Amino acid sequence: MKKMKTGIPGMDEILHGGIPERDVVLLSGGPGTGKSIFSQQFLWNGLQMGEPGVYVAFEEHPVQVRQNMAGFGWDVKEYEEKGIFAMVDAFTAGIGKSKEYEKYIVRDLTDVKEFIDVLGQAVKDVKASRVVIDSVTTLYINKPTMARSIVLQLKRVLAGLGCTSIFVSQISVGERGFGGPGVEHGVDGIIRLDLDEIDGELKRSLMVWKMRGTSHSLKRHPFDIDNEGIKVHFNKILKKKEEVML
Amino acid sequence: MKKMKTGIPGMDEILHGGIPERDVVLLSGGPGTGKSIFSQQFLWNGLQMGEPGVYVAFEEHPVQVRQNMAGFGWDVKEYEEKGIFAMVDAFTAGIGKSKEYEKYIVRDLTDVKEFIDVLGQAVKDVKASRVVIDSVTTLYINKPTMARSIVLQLKRVLAGLGCTSIFVSQISVGERGFGGPGVEHGVDGIIRLDLDEIDGELKRSLMVWKMRGTSHSLKRHPFDIDNEGIKVHFNKILKKKEEVML
Amino acid sequence: MKKMKTGIPGMDEILHGGIPERDVVLLSGGPGTGKSIFSQQFLWNGLQMGEPGVYVAFEEHPVQVRQNMAGFGWDVKEYEEKGIFAMVDAFTAGIGKSKEYEKYIVRDLTDVKEFIDVLGQAVKDVKASRVVIDSVTTLYINKPTMARSIVLQLKRVLAGLGCTSIFVSQISVGERGFGGPGVEHGVDGIIRLDLDEIDGELKRSLMVWKMRGTSHSLKRHPFDIDNEGIKVHFNKILKKKEEVML
Amino acid sequence: MKKMKTGIPGMDEILHGGIPERDVVLLSGGPGTGKSIFSQQFLWNGLQMGEPGVYVAFEEHPVQVRQNMAGFGWDVKEYEEKGIFAMVDAFTAGIGKSKEYEKYIVRDLTDVKEFIDVLGQAVKDVKASRVVIDSVTTLYINKPTMARSIVLQLKRVLAGLGCTSIFVSQISVGERGFGGPGVEHGVDGIIRLDLDEIDGELKRSLMVWKMRGTSHSLKRHPFDIDNEGIKVHFNKILKKKEEVML
Amino acid sequence: MKKMKTGIPGMDEILHGGIPERDVVLLSGGPGTGKSIFSQQFLWNGLQMGEPGVYVAFEEHPVQVRQNMAGFGWDVKEYEEKGIFAMVDAFTAGIGKSKEYEKYIVRDLTDVKEFIDVLGQAVKDVKASRVVIDSVTTLYINKPTMARSIVLQLKRVLAGLGCTSIFVSQISVGERGFGGPGVEHGVDGIIRLDLDEIDGELKRSLMVWKMRGTSHSLKRHPFDIDNEGIKVHFNKILKKKEEVML
Amino acid sequence: MKKMKTGIPGMDEILHGGIPERDVVLLSGGPGTGKSIFSQQFLWNGLQMGEPGVYVAFEEHPVQVRQNMAGFGWDVKEYEEKGIFAMVDAFTAGIGKSKEYEKYIVRDLTDVKEFIDVLGQAVKDVKASRVVIDSVTTLYINKPTMARSIVLQLKRVLAGLGCTSIFVSQISVGERGFGGPGVEHGVDGIIRLDLDEIDGELKRSLMVWKMRGTSHSLKRHPFDIDNEGIKVHFNKILKKKEEVML
Repeated sequence: MKKMKTGIPGMDEILHGGIPERDVVLLSGGPGTGKSIFSQQFLWNGLQMGEPGVYVAFEEHPVQVRQNMAGFGWDVKEYEEKGIFAMVDAFTAGIGKSKEYEKYIVRDLTDVKEFIDVLGQAVKDVKASRVVIDSVTTLYINKPTMARSIVLQLKRVLAGLGCTSIFVSQISVGERGFGGPGVEHGVDGIIRLDLDEIDGELKRSLMVWKMRGTSHSLKRHPFDIDNEGIKVHFNKILKKKEEVML
Repeated sequence: MKKMKTGIPGMDEILHGGIPERDVVLLSGGPGTGKSIFSQQFLWNGLQMGEPGVYVAFEEHPVQVRQNMAGFGWDVKEYEEKGIFAMVDAFTAGIGKSKEYEKYIVRDLTDVKEFIDVLGQAVKDVKASRVVIDSVTTLYINKPTMARSIVLQLKRVLAGLGCTSIFVSQISVGERGFGGPGVEHGVDGIIRLDLDEIDGELKRSLMVWKMRGTSHSLKRHPFDIDNEGIKVHFNKILKKKEEVML
Repeated sequence: MKKMKTGIPGMDEILHGGIPERDVVLLSGGPGTGKSIFSQQFLWNGLQMGEPGVYVAFEEHPVQVRQNMAGFGWDVKEYEEKGIFAMVDAFTAGIGKSKEYEKYIVRDLTDVKEFIDVLGQAVKDVKASRVVIDSVTTLYINKPTMARSIVLQLKRVLAGLGCTSIFVSQISVGERGFGGPGVEHGVDGIIRLDLDEIDGELKRSLMVWKMRGTSHSLKRHPFDIDNEGIKVHFNKILKKKEEVML
Repeated sequence: MKKMKTGIPGMDEILHGGIPERDVVLLSGGPGTGKSIFSQQFLWNGLQMGEPGVYVAFEEHPVQVRQNMAGFGWDVKEYEEKGIFAMVDAFTAGIGKSKEYEKYIVRDLTDVKEFIDVLGQAVKDVKASRVVIDSVTTLYINKPTMARSIVLQLKRVLAGLGCTSIFVSQISVGERGFGGPGVEHGVDGIIRLDLDEIDGELKRSLMVWKMRGTSHSLKRHPFDIDNEGIKVHFNKILKKKEEVML
Repeated sequence: MKKMKTGIPGMDEILHGGIPERDVVLLSGGPGTGKSIFSQQFLWNGLQMGEPGVYVAFEEHPVQVRQNMAGFGWDVKEYEEKGIFAMVDAFTAGIGKSKEYEKYIVRDLTDVKEFIDVLGQAVKDVKASRVVIDSVTTLYINKPTMARSIVLQLKRVLAGLGCTSIFVSQISVGERGFGGPGVEHGVDGIIRLDLDEIDGELKRSLMVWKMRGTSHSLKRHPFDIDNEGIKVHFNKILKKKEEVML
Repeated sequence: MKKMKTGIPGMDEILHGGIPERDVVLLSGGPGTGKSIFSQQFLWNGLQMGEPGVYVAFEEHPVQVRQNMAGFGWDVKEYEEKGIFAMVDAFTAGIGKSKEYEKYIVRDLTDVKEFIDVLGQAVKDVKASRVVIDSVTTLYINKPTMARSIVLQLKRVLAGLGCTSIFVSQISVGERGFGGPGVEHGVDGIIRLDLDEIDGELKRSLMVWKMRGTSHSLKRHPFDIDNEGIKVHFNKILKKKEEVML
């Protein structure tokens, strides 16, 4: 089984090589845990290895996403021009100037079918092997009973197109789980990013909860975010304070 | 009373011989706990002992299920050809190419009656003595008040056909119980798979909560998953940290 | 006040003689706690003492119930033939072959009035002094606001007919209480069966929470289930780990 | 301010003399805590002191209530005949034989107005100074938004008639509070009866949470129930295990 | 900034002088915590300092309120006659005899506009500088989404009329917060009264959580209620047992 | 990247220079935590540095807001006259005298579009580089499913106009998170103000949970409020008592 290296320092050691090809990984975390940075770093590193990618921007203006990435030294513009990276604008609905310079625009944000069509086109155009949807939560935030079927549809399409995908899942601070049972059982892998207050200080850590098709570290690893992105301490363990399990 | 050996290393010791014939066992666990692997291993081991089986795929594409199984060395294709194993496709609804090569397809996934008809046909065709429904949760995820009656219907049909069955039940991380009172009281046995963070590391364990018609271990046993599947440490106990009972 | 001996080893010591005649006792517990075994043992022991009984099967096929009982050596068939024991089939709705050999069938499981009529007939026919409804939960599982009035109706009818009754109440793992305030305040007695994980092992215990018309042990007693049924250790106490009360 | 002695051993010491005249006291507790016994003992003791009383039976058949009371030696029949005690039948709705021998019957149990009329008549007929409604919870069990206004109406009527009243409030095991904010803020006094498992044994205790118009013990007092009713240990304190407050 | 002395022993020390003029203070507490006594004492002390006041009676009959106050030696009748104190009857809806002797009656208790008109009239008539609404909770108990706008309306009117006001807020035992986010963010100050069981005994304490326009003690102070009302121990601290914060 | 200094003593040290230009920061806290003071101090300090600002008053009358600010020595009137500060009245709906002297009035408080128009006009008129919406919670308090889209709309407009913004978010005492998942994932930064009882005394602290485009302290810092506003102890840490994480 081929694995896609994340290229994130320390992460491939934890994944025993990378994310198995065609897997859909739920990247789950509360606000400020680094989900967008992780997934952008995954795409950027793919581009450096010659693997085309698609980023779906649901939460930020595509222009802002490009700026954020550039702030870490990940300037995707030349890759967009070369036709090996695509940004899907699922933020502006085509309102404002974005329609003049964005190529892939989802106009009706409540229409999953249209979204899948636009995404599929972008994937085919750049021959993407890596896809990030940031976030998948937005697709069902106001229709939770649809969550499972939306995630399964996306998984079917993207796996069918040969992509390895990260679905960003937004959860609340202190929420257990990864975004709801319908979602977390439907994906191939789950990585959770945590930001916990321990003795008056916020600590970052991540843990791989499942990953179909590979063994992986079962430990909680601390990580840092600096101006080069995420670095995971694959040889360290963070022990959280004792939890009360309900 | 005849017992069906699971063939999973360590598990039959825990079950004092196996699962009593015609019992319906709820196999309950959160995401990443190994439910699908456990149930596929149960079927595969049955095939090795000459016991035909049926696997109902609700959560993954049948092709993917076969690949996943093959990854553990459990290649079911020849058994399908021999007519002693059947895959029920309750995933694609017959959309796409699956209808060309899948024999048992549930077209309307909201129609429990149709599902039971297709399942019954598969069971009769291969003379199945083992059945896995992965997962039964999907059948009532959006209609929880129907859960009890759906489970009882399935149990009646499958016991009537002489099958010993595993119903996979998806629960959330940290959820107590096994999938709702209507379900957990209706089945003959309950096995729960757990994945708990202890001192910064995820630990796997399982416990048999009930099993009609046999005594069994009442202890929490650790288990591992490697490239040969599940191995249960029937002579070890895992003590979880103290829980708060509500 | 006359008391009905349960005949379950250790139990009558705990009840200071037995269940007061005409009381309705809620037998409450999670899945796998032994509710059905307890209530079947109560009926069987009554038959040995010459006290006719009725068992209402809501959760299992009547044939299966008879088999389960026979597995403990409690073969009720000859008592059915003698006309001092009756099984009420509230499981099949008369569908299938059961209508050929079951005498008491509830056809519309949502019709409480019909149920009470069938039950009343069975009670009168065998002159039952003991009745078990397994479970009463099923009667209001999808209409919780009716729970209180259904329980009170049944209590009125059965007390009026001179029966001493056990109402099995299904609760979830870890649920406090006994099946909802409308139910637990309406009955004369409450016995709760527990199955708790303590240091990696499941432990069985029971406690009598109330019993109108008699004093009783207020202690938590461990019990075992073996191939002769339940045995309660009336001179032992189980101390659960400290609970957090909410 | 005149106080009504409860006559329950130890209780008047706790209440610094008794319940202030015309107060409405919420007697709150889970199943099996002794609410009915407490309130019946309050009425019986009133009768011994020449104070007429009314008992409203919502939860048990009036005949059963009289039997239960007689079981403690509190035979109210002669007092009913003398016209200084009345039983209001709010249980049978006049169905069955009760209409032949019960004088005060509430026919439509959902009609609060009719209930108040019947209750008012009974109070006037026997010139009641003590009233027990067992339980007031039943009046709003399926219409919680009406709880506050129903309790305030009853309070207004009964205080207007010069009665000192106990309203029995049914709560769930482990429930905090006394029956809902609308109710517990509307009454003049609150006494809570508790039944808690401590080290494997059920312990009874009570505490007065408020009592308008009098000081009172603020301590948790253990009590027993034997065949003479309730005895409170006014000079003992029960310390429950540490609670987690949410 | 002028401050209104509460006159409650120990309280003005805690408030560093009193409640800032025109502030609206939420006085929040569970049943039996002394909210009505605190607010009545605040009004009575105002009258002694020549500051007219208005009390809105939502929870008790105005006659009862006057009696309760008189029980502490706070007889407001002469002040009503002098026209410097007014009672608003928001309890009887004008039903019964109250309409013969109450001057300010809210007839439709669901009509906030009418309530504000009646309250405004009373405030103007007596030139009130102190107002108590006991309780404001009743105004939105069955329409929680209106809570914020009702509180803001009242605040606007009363501040506009130059009043310093106490809004009594009823909360449940063990409830965190002060009566809902819409309410607690809308007021100028919050004082919470607590009644907590510590080692088998109920302990009274209060804490000022916010007070616009003044510094104040941030400590939890114990207080007592005796036949002269509330006395706060401004130089003592009560440390509650460790709480679990969720 | 340019940063906007908050000017709040100790805060810019924590933010490693200030809030990145054009970021939208959620300022989240319970009642009495100092949210309004923090945001007013941010605006006032901007004015001292020549940076125009807009304050949207949703929770208090604009006149009251000006008075509150003046109480800290922050008299904005001259800045309003100079046309470099604007107050948006989203409180009175133009009812009362405010329409005579307030320039920016939101008439229909349920109309987000009108609100954005008025706000946009104010921002353009004063060429605002700092904006405070106090609070954004009010905009969706009764329509939680709209929270995400409202926050994203506002963010788009304000970032488009070049403003750096603080959105005040009201949460309940003891509530985890920052105001709901839709909101907390949509903003660029999150600062939470806390007020916790520790050993019988309320303690103030704040923590920066995320801030796009800058590193920042990850520690919990204590702060004080006195008559000059907020002072943060950037070189101190507050360790809260151990929390139970659910």
